[in-house]
Amino acid sequence: MKRLLAVLLLSTAFAFAQAERVEPPFWYAGMHNPELQVMFYGKGIAQYTPSVSGNVPVKNVVKTENPNYVFITIDTRNVPPSDLVFTFKDTKGKTKFTRNYTLKQRRAGSAQRKSFDSSDVIYLLMPDRFANGNPANDNSGMAEKASRADINGRHGGDIEGIIKNLDYLQGLGATAIWSTPLCEDNHPAYSYHGYAQTDVYKIDPRYGTNEDYLRLSAEIKKRGMKLIMDYVTNHWGSEHWMYKDLPTYEWVHQFPGYAQSNYRMTTQFDTNASDIDAKYCMDGWFVESMPDLNQSNPLVLKYLTQNAIWWIEYADLDGFRVDTYSYNDKEGIAKWTKAITDEYPYFNIVGEVWMHDQAQMSYWQKDSKIAAIQSYNSYLPSVMDFTLHDAVGGVFNEDKPSWDQGMQKVYDNFTNDFLYPNVNNLLVFVENHDTGRFNHIYNSDFKKYQMAMALIATVRGIPQLYYGSEIGMAGDKGKGDGDIRRDMPGGWAGDANNAFTASGRTAQQKQYFDFTSKLFSWRKNKEVIHTGKMLHYLPWDNVYVYFRYNDKETVMVVMNNSNESRTFKTGRFAEGIKNYKTGKDVLTGKSLTLVNDITIEPKSVLILELN
Amino acid sequence: MKRLLAVLLLSTAFAFAQAERVEPPFWYAGMHNPELQVMFYGKGIAQYTPSVSGNVPVKNVVKTENPNYVFITIDTRNVPPSDLVFTFKDTKGKTKFTRNYTLKQRRAGSAQRKSFDSSDVIYLLMPDRFANGNPANDNSGMAEKASRADINGRHGGDIEGIIKNLDYLQGLGATAIWSTPLCEDNHPAYSYHGYAQTDVYKIDPRYGTNEDYLRLSAEIKKRGMKLIMDYVTNHWGSEHWMYKDLPTYEWVHQFPGYAQSNYRMTTQFDTNASDIDAKYCMDGWFVESMPDLNQSNPLVLKYLTQNAIWWIEYADLDGFRVDTYSYNDKEGIAKWTKAITDEYPYFNIVGEVWMHDQAQMSYWQKDSKIAAIQSYNSYLPSVMDFTLHDAVGGVFNEDKPSWDQGMQKVYDNFTNDFLYPNVNNLLVFVENHDTGRFNHIYNSDFKKYQMAMALIATVRGIPQLYYGSEIGMAGDKGKGDGDIRRDMPGGWAGDANNAFTASGRTAQQKQYFDFTSKLFSWRKNKEVIHTGKMLHYLPWDNVYVYFRYNDKETVMVVMNNSNESRTFKTGRFAEGIKNYKTGKDVLTGKSLTLVNDITIEPKSVLILELN
Repeated sequence: MKRLLAVLLLSTAFAFAQAERVEPPFWYAGMHNPELQVMFYGKGIAQYTPSVSGNVPVKNVVKTENPNYVFITIDTRNVPPSDLVFTFKDTKGKTKFTRNYTLKQRRAGSAQRKSFDSSDVIYLLMPDRFANGNPANDNSGMAEKASRADINGRHGGDIEGIIKNLDYLQGLGATAIWSTPLCEDNHPAYSYHGYAQTDVYKIDPRYGTNEDYLRLSAEIKKRGMKLIMDYVTNHWGSEHWMYKDLPTYEWVHQFPGYAQSNYRMTTQFDTNASDIDAKYCMDGWFVESMPDLNQSNPLVLKYLTQNAIWWIEYADLDGFRVDTYSYNDKEGIAKWTKAITDEYPYFNIVGEVWMHDQAQMSYWQKDSKIAAIQSYNSYLPSVMDFTLHDAVGGVFNEDKPSWDQGMQKVYDNFTNDFLYPNVNNLLVFVENHDTGRFNHIYNSDFKKYQMAMALIATVRGIPQLYYGSEIGMAGDKGKGDGDIRRDMPGGWAGDANNAFTASGRTAQQKQYFDFTSKLFSWRKNKEVIHTGKMLHYLPWDNVYVYFRYNDKETVMVVMNNSNESRTFKTGRFAEGIKNYKTGKDVLTGKSLTLVNDITIEPKSVLILELN
Repeated sequence: MKRLLAVLLLSTAFAFAQAERVEPPFWYAGMHNPELQVMFYGKGIAQYTPSVSGNVPVKNVVKTENPNYVFITIDTRNVPPSDLVFTFKDTKGKTKFTRNYTLKQRRAGSAQRKSFDSSDVIYLLMPDRFANGNPANDNSGMAEKASRADINGRHGGDIEGIIKNLDYLQGLGATAIWSTPLCEDNHPAYSYHGYAQTDVYKIDPRYGTNEDYLRLSAEIKKRGMKLIMDYVTNHWGSEHWMYKDLPTYEWVHQFPGYAQSNYRMTTQFDTNASDIDAKYCMDGWFVESMPDLNQSNPLVLKYLTQNAIWWIEYADLDGFRVDTYSYNDKEGIAKWTKAITDEYPYFNIVGEVWMHDQAQMSYWQKDSKIAAIQSYNSYLPSVMDFTLHDAVGGVFNEDKPSWDQGMQKVYDNFTNDFLYPNVNNLLVFVENHDTGRFNHIYNSDFKKYQMAMALIATVRGIPQLYYGSEIGMAGDKGKGDGDIRRDMPGGWAGDANNAFTASGRTAQQKQYFDFTSKLFSWRKNKEVIHTGKMLHYLPWDNVYVYFRYNDKETVMVVMNNSNESRTFKTGRFAEGIKNYKTGKDVLTGKSLTLVNDITIEPKSVLILELN
């Protein structure tokens, strides 16, 4: 035993010298795709001949122009959970070093895991700005130190802060948490957003450890909630350790000089587009500090695919949100997405497809008939309803009845639902960490907030909230992203105002929180909202009426966006009302008769459970 | 022989008494669809039992709740061109009257007739406002008399006026003429537009006779030009003789009281739409004076189909423009369209689908993949590019470089071309008789007119001009439709200004006409423009560059919409320029080198034939 230990220590010492990094650091037995590409990184490592213990077949060994990398693909079919040993020999056949490699046991039911869906309410937060649960990790020896005074700096929020406030989120009615990226983003400045990652196998130590992330996942599961990881396939940070010693020149998209994306995603399907414009969209860099990954390179694609699967398996994830989805190599990202959903058939992935035309957004959703025109299938289960977001950003200030303003714009958004292969798998939201904040746009008008929240709580799709708005937080995108990403009050020791607790909230915060909590807590068990059909009516006088219904129940929503009280006859809505006689208002608890007229106050909403 | 004549005269006398109308008034032998539904109208006619001469099979005889109509369907298969006789007998078997009915010989090649296509330039005119070739027919005993002083009145323009100016139109470069409806519209007021027809088998006598229309067709053909009829399937006028004595209550869409269309065409595919909204869109009346035809009634559908085919065959037509296409009964209008194109496989029909979303417009084009989502096919070969029209209505005033304004909007329009089953069969236009006039919107800015015309002359699709703009005519939609439908100067005897002749034009009219004529005359034989592929580049600094190309030639278009001269390197356009070295400007005849920089003046366009 002592001898074995000595050998292990020795080989570990060799490993440190000869393989500084092995990625994925471990893997799992019994995966759907048995091929595993293990990347070994170490000075001059490509000069050695690798082999693997037991009878595990080596499918191929890829060496690149960079002698510090070797990619070994093994076939794990029929290999039980076990410790493998990789051996590296020199040209004389002498073992230079070995490396243990573990194939772990998967969790029971891992492949068949459920994911987030339209029964969920997603809470989007930025971990640096949410709550600082562990002030001791604020700097962690990283390039950028915490400075809460700097609107664009690191503020110290972390995983511990999220864990401490899970009960708050549960009380709000959130059932799933989407945190912006938590992996290491070790740049000297403006790193708090986390989208310029420098190590995609490691949680940024200012947020905590990989184990902390596992703990977050477990705590979320304990509450019956779900964890969605924000995955970035399109780019890494320029301080990524591999970018500083590229495995191959083509690992990232290379141009003579620097080439920025033109951000014109239409070039990806436009049959008239010039090759150069399509190339600059897809291959140009998002910003100079974010090298654009080349997913058309099989090594890169496999690396990104395995990294994503590793996180699902390791942290027991319930879903992905994928950043800048439609900027990726179009074929590559489809392969990435398919590989993940082949591995986990019920795993949901929502892609950021920030476009303003429903046919274009539909293009990116799995099994789209629009994309099928070009024989394309992204395999991406979910996209974001950006046109609804576009509409909601203005309509509540459009008070007058109009041919095409106000509620008509909201109605219009849903007239194109038939273009989507799956409307229930659209993310519906009024804002996110990149857009104007609702409460700023609408000058903290609580009535407009109520209407907007009622809308996303009751239409088809998956509502997504953005941290802080539920307590009335505002922030001006015009002042820069920092202002729409303010700290949650109470997330830092010593905060004068603590919005996380009922007793700590101001009267305004309480008003916002209580409403939001009531609305989304009600939604939790409303199957008719999760998966019911929709029936809507042409708005008149800026009043919009729609129904959600299934075989068992019906909810009627009435939204008066005018500045006047409206009384209307119910007869026109017979198709929706059917034989129901009364409606109980979810927000007030009051019952209304449906037989005669209904009166609705200015700028307000009725959510009626019919009975 | 004398005896036969006497019999014929006698039967004709009977016919006048007993069958006031027979429609179609005659038909053609050898049609693709051999079934012919002949409608007989006369007081109490349904009491008689009809039969037809020879061995012509009677498929069915339909009588309705109105005893004044009988619909007899005969099978004309194997019946040569000939005179048939319909005999009507009373219950005692006694012949009450007979009616001769002619099956005429079709023109050679009638079924295989070619139609308008992307090699054409369509000139849209309103006959009442174009030219008064025959002042003697201005009133013709009709309800509304000519009054040129009344902006909404009849002004006296007619078919003779069109015929007299065909050389003018040919000189302009127009190759096809779309006149707004010429059939009888006999209402006491506001009848000049012709969309409220009162007899769809008869040219309005204020425009001339059916024979005059035939003469127009022949004169157009003589010049190698094409005639497009404006067909209205959706509605008739409330003074239509059949509306005053409806064949059946359901001939038009009936409501308790009057029901106007909600004009929300999205209800026709919106899976969330309420039945009542869809019904009001489709079945509600366009305006109170236009009873909405019920195409879901087989008698109506057949009547409209045969009427349309009759005009094609009778007047030797080259195409239809169909009014308010997407307000029709959705299934009915598809059957109508298919019946016509089954009869004439190469016949082009452009439908007015006035929507603002390309997926929605594509929905209505034949073989649309968008419509196929709902298993729908309209069979309509051509739709109008209304989103291009929307863009063109503002962009030339958007001078500043911008993310989404100016030429970017024009570029964006073409990024969705893949949604259309056939982009070459889109009508491209900057205005029509229902929209704002370009020269008013742009305050008669000739440079902007040049850019707009150059655009529709060189992009994919079929350019459509609107009468008068080619001589700089303006008119304010804000003042009512009358102002965008002014009289062509010179169309009336005594007009001080005659824009129809070179010598009669003002300097401004000459400038507009000469440019327009040069541009569209050039387009006539440019196959690369008619059917070439398009390649376009992202605009920068409000400059838009695109190419049209085929195996034989390439045209490069550069449009500078900014207020500054722009100089740019040609290198970025290598994919379009290929090995060409110079470009000859179609408008100035000057040659430019493509090797180095190109400079383009503010608010101007270069149309370069590469060589």
